[in-house]
Amino acid sequence: MSEAREFKHIGQRTIRPDGYDKVTGRANFGADLSLPGMIWGKIHRSPHAHAKILSIDTSKAEAHPDVLAVVTASDFPAIQSETIAVGEGSEDLFDLTRNLLAADKVLYHGHAVAALAARSERAAAEALSLIEVQYEVLPPVLDLRAAMADDAPVLHQDMFTEGYDKKPEKPSNVATRLEAKIGDIEAGFAAADVIVEREFYTPTAHQGYIEPHACTVRYDENGQSMIWCSTQGHFDVRARTAKILDMDQTSLKVIASEIGGGFGGKTTVYLEPVALLLSKKSGCPVKMVMQRTEVFIATGPTSAAKLWVKVGAKKDGKITAMQGRLAYEAGAFKGSPMMPGVMTMFAPYDVANVCVEGFDVVVNKPKVAAYRAPGAPQAEFAAEMLVSELADQLAMDPLELRLKNAAREGTQTLYGPKLKSVGLVACLEAVKNSPHYQAPLGTPQSGKVRGRALASGFWFNMGGQSSVVINMNPDGTGTIVEGSPDIGGSRASMQMMAAEAMELPISRLKPIIADTDNVPFSATTGGSRTTYATGMAVVEAAQKVVQQLKERAAALWNLTPEQVEYADGVVHAKQGDDQLSVREICQAAEKTGGQISGQANINARGAGPGFAVHVCDLEVDTDTGKVDVIRYTASQDAGKAIHPGYVEGQLQGGAVQGIGWALNEEYIFDDQGVMENSGFLDYRIPLASDLPMIDTLVVEVPNTFHPYGVRGVGETSIIPPLAAVGYAVSKAIGAPITTLPCSPPRVLKLIQDKA
Amino acid sequence: MSEAREFKHIGQRTIRPDGYDKVTGRANFGADLSLPGMIWGKIHRSPHAHAKILSIDTSKAEAHPDVLAVVTASDFPAIQSETIAVGEGSEDLFDLTRNLLAADKVLYHGHAVAALAARSERAAAEALSLIEVQYEVLPPVLDLRAAMADDAPVLHQDMFTEGYDKKPEKPSNVATRLEAKIGDIEAGFAAADVIVEREFYTPTAHQGYIEPHACTVRYDENGQSMIWCSTQGHFDVRARTAKILDMDQTSLKVIASEIGGGFGGKTTVYLEPVALLLSKKSGCPVKMVMQRTEVFIATGPTSAAKLWVKVGAKKDGKITAMQGRLAYEAGAFKGSPMMPGVMTMFAPYDVANVCVEGFDVVVNKPKVAAYRAPGAPQAEFAAEMLVSELADQLAMDPLELRLKNAAREGTQTLYGPKLKSVGLVACLEAVKNSPHYQAPLGTPQSGKVRGRALASGFWFNMGGQSSVVINMNPDGTGTIVEGSPDIGGSRASMQMMAAEAMELPISRLKPIIADTDNVPFSATTGGSRTTYATGMAVVEAAQKVVQQLKERAAALWNLTPEQVEYADGVVHAKQGDDQLSVREICQAAEKTGGQISGQANINARGAGPGFAVHVCDLEVDTDTGKVDVIRYTASQDAGKAIHPGYVEGQLQGGAVQGIGWALNEEYIFDDQGVMENSGFLDYRIPLASDLPMIDTLVVEVPNTFHPYGVRGVGETSIIPPLAAVGYAVSKAIGAPITTLPCSPPRVLKLIQDKA
Repeated sequence: MSEAREFKHIGQRTIRPDGYDKVTGRANFGADLSLPGMIWGKIHRSPHAHAKILSIDTSKAEAHPDVLAVVTASDFPAIQSETIAVGEGSEDLFDLTRNLLAADKVLYHGHAVAALAARSERAAAEALSLIEVQYEVLPPVLDLRAAMADDAPVLHQDMFTEGYDKKPEKPSNVATRLEAKIGDIEAGFAAADVIVEREFYTPTAHQGYIEPHACTVRYDENGQSMIWCSTQGHFDVRARTAKILDMDQTSLKVIASEIGGGFGGKTTVYLEPVALLLSKKSGCPVKMVMQRTEVFIATGPTSAAKLWVKVGAKKDGKITAMQGRLAYEAGAFKGSPMMPGVMTMFAPYDVANVCVEGFDVVVNKPKVAAYRAPGAPQAEFAAEMLVSELADQLAMDPLELRLKNAAREGTQTLYGPKLKSVGLVACLEAVKNSPHYQAPLGTPQSGKVRGRALASGFWFNMGGQSSVVINMNPDGTGTIVEGSPDIGGSRASMQMMAAEAMELPISRLKPIIADTDNVPFSATTGGSRTTYATGMAVVEAAQKVVQQLKERAAALWNLTPEQVEYADGVVHAKQGDDQLSVREICQAAEKTGGQISGQANINARGAGPGFAVHVCDLEVDTDTGKVDVIRYTASQDAGKAIHPGYVEGQLQGGAVQGIGWALNEEYIFDDQGVMENSGFLDYRIPLASDLPMIDTLVVEVPNTFHPYGVRGVGETSIIPPLAAVGYAVSKAIGAPITTLPCSPPRVLKLIQDKA
Repeated sequence: MSEAREFKHIGQRTIRPDGYDKVTGRANFGADLSLPGMIWGKIHRSPHAHAKILSIDTSKAEAHPDVLAVVTASDFPAIQSETIAVGEGSEDLFDLTRNLLAADKVLYHGHAVAALAARSERAAAEALSLIEVQYEVLPPVLDLRAAMADDAPVLHQDMFTEGYDKKPEKPSNVATRLEAKIGDIEAGFAAADVIVEREFYTPTAHQGYIEPHACTVRYDENGQSMIWCSTQGHFDVRARTAKILDMDQTSLKVIASEIGGGFGGKTTVYLEPVALLLSKKSGCPVKMVMQRTEVFIATGPTSAAKLWVKVGAKKDGKITAMQGRLAYEAGAFKGSPMMPGVMTMFAPYDVANVCVEGFDVVVNKPKVAAYRAPGAPQAEFAAEMLVSELADQLAMDPLELRLKNAAREGTQTLYGPKLKSVGLVACLEAVKNSPHYQAPLGTPQSGKVRGRALASGFWFNMGGQSSVVINMNPDGTGTIVEGSPDIGGSRASMQMMAAEAMELPISRLKPIIADTDNVPFSATTGGSRTTYATGMAVVEAAQKVVQQLKERAAALWNLTPEQVEYADGVVHAKQGDDQLSVREICQAAEKTGGQISGQANINARGAGPGFAVHVCDLEVDTDTGKVDVIRYTASQDAGKAIHPGYVEGQLQGGAVQGIGWALNEEYIFDDQGVMENSGFLDYRIPLASDLPMIDTLVVEVPNTFHPYGVRGVGETSIIPPLAAVGYAVSKAIGAPITTLPCSPPRVLKLIQDKA
């Protein structure tokens, strides 16, 4: 693998196969399937953030002439506690079921209590008020600081903190405590000339996908049940739903619709098992589509976090010790991304003494879900803020400080392996040499101040299971059958990699996302794994096809496969002039043993870590506290950018989400735990008009595990913006930022307090 | 392979996987898919049986406010003549296109001339009359006797009879002449003591499937076009449509709906390419559903035939010579099933001197299509009638005469190979020993007469290409993905064969019919090939899964696959107590290299010939000529009956179709070639109330090519009834039957002529 390798298709900016249908509106998303006889499901949700359910009376709803089914938690089969993988983390099956429909307690405002299905969407909405629930309201625990207090109300009486040597004596809202370390943290700080230390807070923030959760399902008593839904992983929807409803996986087909954004938030289930129960009870297909408010209050945002961090360094900038203590809100049930937070916090640094302690804390908020590099933006925000502060204390260029301590091949990581070839130094140098970093910050107009900062980011990236089959047609065209929902253009990358491996025009290879019946299990599209892992499977399947093409042509010539060669869609005999095109070989496949197809079911290892470095210039209006990003550059190591346009899009999209998180996005609750801004007018994500063009610097340090050098690129880019923006605001206003978002009132207060 | 082999699943009468949905009405047939924005297509058909098209004016139809597209033959890309396989025969692509939409001439009443699509079905039907076609009417050629006359009007001026040593000087309605022989036919007759000779006629008859042709299609400019249709072979629909519309196969997905009968008639295309053209032109999805009249007048029935036959035998019954001369109507375009008629005519007999000459003749009727054992019922009808007549002349039991001359292992066939192990003798003996054959015919009431006759039947059966993949799920269940539409219960047989090979309960294996994107090319369900050929692929795929299960378990134990054994869903180490269930191995597949699946793309050879013997008792009302079958037994060699219930159903269904053909079914045309009975009230197929229970005797002489001994069973059973019924009527009324059907007026006339 060398960067100089020449590719024919890889690296081109091809037209995405799904683009036409999406542009013309023909593509079908989660809410776009209707079936004959279909009815509509709706969910009755808790008005309280914390309450005991004393009784649920569904009789009036059931008596409504248009209502065909009502379900509550008692309709689920008995479920045992069992840990199941979800995206990059895991969740407990019992908790998941309780989250789908509350049993004894409601644990957050919006928690589902019952569901019904009626002949029309309107009738369903109307009948919801006929479900009568009696509650005993309990004091809500709305923040992890409150939740960790000794006298906090406890959400789960059966929860005792795990991760200590002996089981605690009393139940707690802290589900798990974790500690990871390398070296000797005390010795590290003792060797330091300078020590910085600070505590940070990040808010509850939502992925903000445009498409709400939606599904259409049909229960079938005879093993032909079906779910159509918007999901990042239809195999995981199948696994969860089958488990929860006690079905065989083979009796449930799940079809992934086109998806209008997920960012981790569509890696679990909210509606599907409930809809299938309603379908079973009513005998009708059922459609459920969330309202935007429901998406905010009842699906998984990411954790609010409290992040204490301490860094020590020599005068020359060599960091000697890095320590963190992180607490993540899990929401109503255990399972925040605390662990990846712990593991990634200091990963961009080659430091001998590192220690991080983490806590997973339940509160009366919706159960968190994965959000792009789950856990890492919070932890690395704190670390990067402090490293930038350290650079200022040492009067060093923050980029030079990072270069001096940069993780590189051979660096011992906190999370286990020593790094192989990675691109952090290359990213830092790309930024250092960039027009942006070399340009002066410039002078603002009166009433405005400017700041510049940079930050690094690290994400593991994942591999995992992917299954692919390439079926050749008798006319020499082929279909790439994969099981990975296409969120960010992966159909294009699969098509390009297959075309590269098979030396065929991309137009002759059509990628499709098969349902769970038609391709073996493939892991959820998450962890930046798809172009990497599914791509590996595509290449392996393509190579098998090429090998068969050679064997078939050889057979037609009475030669051995070793006596033929393949190039540019043609097999030719090494000796003599015989040659056969792919089309000709496929046409003759009937005579040489049947059709040609190549399959690869893999569990991909060796996903290359992704490093990024972002630099942000921004301007603060000192009268209002409003922050405007005025220039932004994102550098990231893609390993190899299969489709540069979509890689750039990932860098830009992640940067924008991180900027939104840094500047504006947060859940605002009243003192009873009722979310006050559950809509896009009040929960403000950045619009195109809010931001400058995000410049990208795609670095390519090949990942030796992948045949074309690919690393995942989807997630890392959301990590650096929090500190790049946050520290740039600090620099601009001359006051430390400790709490995100840097929203106008908060920034204005800092300006006013300083004045 | 031995008949004594014990099976666990094979031979059971399991519940078919598709049964529940079909009984509850939930199954989706050809007309059951509707898409958003869909419009309706209809076809303008010729009122004339033979005419030149002088002009087509579609302007008024195009101006209709609800009409969104009108197409004629000129909208097809230029098509070259090319022979393509269709079911058991072949068709010419150029002719097929002309049959879809007539170009210069219309060649039968009902021939499609133009098509339009409008916003509603009603608007489309109304607008048809706005298409104005000017014709120059030509004299129609309505029967093969007329067509073969020297002065007959010629349908195709460019058609010269093929099969002669030199090209004929003038065009002809005879497309092809074929002769096949073994031995010395003159010497055979010279050695005979008794010679019988007669000419027979069989009518144009339709398959009579209940579900009309129907499709819903969506054209997509970006390679994502889709056809949903009722078909016996969606891969062949894709191949034909792609060829006709000049598309890559990968840009067109065809989904086979559930199918409400086909019997060969759904092995080609009538609507699909036209609908796709309408969709392309209108930009909308298009649905087309034939009316029953359209099915009769414009899809392919089977050939009317003229059948001359001559048989010579020794006094002891040893047949010395068999000769036939067969002419088959092809309809408007060349391509009747004359060749299989020639090949099968005398196949039940071990005779040294055989000669058959055949003619394929075009007439002004709809182009014929395959119908259950295409060509064989006509030819073998004639042969069996005459063999029964020979038995009477020799005063021999007709069963003993057939036993004496029965084809058996080693018999040299007219069509090529010497027979391997076959079941004709076993069928004859089963009938001989049956309660039916041993019972007396009984005495009819006054005014009625009775007859009994028997007849044999032979059909090749086919193999061909089948592709199957079995995908194991992480919970140890599996999905059998096949490409063969299920017409006669093949999902059940696939499930049973997979369960047998994998030693798992059938409930853990779900068979599905994948669309053309999700499984490699599989040949059309026809030729009685599916349980045989697709079954072989299923078994091969299942064996690959079992091998992988062993390898994976061995890997988990650090053993080699040779050190483990598989039985009853469990792998266990040959030494020690280690064992793992399929579920456990599949759950752990992630750790052992990815998911488990087994694929087999095969071209199956060695389909075992199928023999049948039927015996029929019937009663004729001498006042009306009405014939009632009063007892009927069908014996057939299934090789191995995977699902005895469905095998019996095939025997019964074929028998009933043959009885209908023998007694009532025929196309009736006026002298201008307009079909007068194009509905099920006038074209009378047998109802359950018309017939006694059809008794079955399933004989099992294993086919050594198939792992479980399967032979095709779908077609043979339609062959014997024509002569079993026909000769029984002869016996009852004491007058020779030469023309089918034995309808009341025809039988009454024979009775009256004799009196």
